[in-house]
Amino acid sequence: MLVVHVQVHVKPEYLEAFKQATIANARESIKEPGIARFDLAQQQDDPTRFVLVEAYCTAEAPAAHKGTRHYLTWRDTVAHMMAEPRASVKFSNQFPQDADW
Amino acid sequence: MLVVHVQVHVKPEYLEAFKQATIANARESIKEPGIARFDLAQQQDDPTRFVLVEAYCTAEAPAAHKGTRHYLTWRDTVAHMMAEPRASVKFSNQFPQDADW
Repeated sequence: MLVVHVQVHVKPEYLEAFKQATIANARESIKEPGIARFDLAQQQDDPTRFVLVEAYCTAEAPAAHKGTRHYLTWRDTVAHMMAEPRASVKFSNQFPQDADW
Repeated sequence: MLVVHVQVHVKPEYLEAFKQATIANARESIKEPGIARFDLAQQQDDPTRFVLVEAYCTAEAPAAHKGTRHYLTWRDTVAHMMAEPRASVKFSNQFPQDADW
């Protein structure tokens, strides 16, 4: 199980638009067979910062996700909303065991 | 739903010991009524770095967690394993909706 944290810094005027576009993407992403979770959270002490937590079940799942219409729509919709380029960090799942995600 | 990311930098000689102690803590933590998830992941490009993703259902749940025996045991067990003080960031859940965690 690959867990990807995507850190996003959003321009203040786009907070609601970013949330809406990202939740729309997340709702479709969790239907993908290779995706176990696709969470969005907003930082409490700086609401312009968000983290996406994406849990992929297979090595092929991230590339499959990036080929979906909902991902491409999200990518293009939010491009101008970013205060800086987003950053992602890849993690290997340790707990719970993969079958329990 | 409060989501807390705890970033931990572990001394290289304690990687396995840290994992074992943290998984033992996580197994007990997810039994707490106020905790929805308690995930551990290890950074792929730097295995000395871990993230705990803790999802709390109520405002009281973090304090309740810090009063449990398993938390106190973990805290004391891993104290000397840290390469630097751990850092936590608090997030407000945006997706999925709280009931779906």
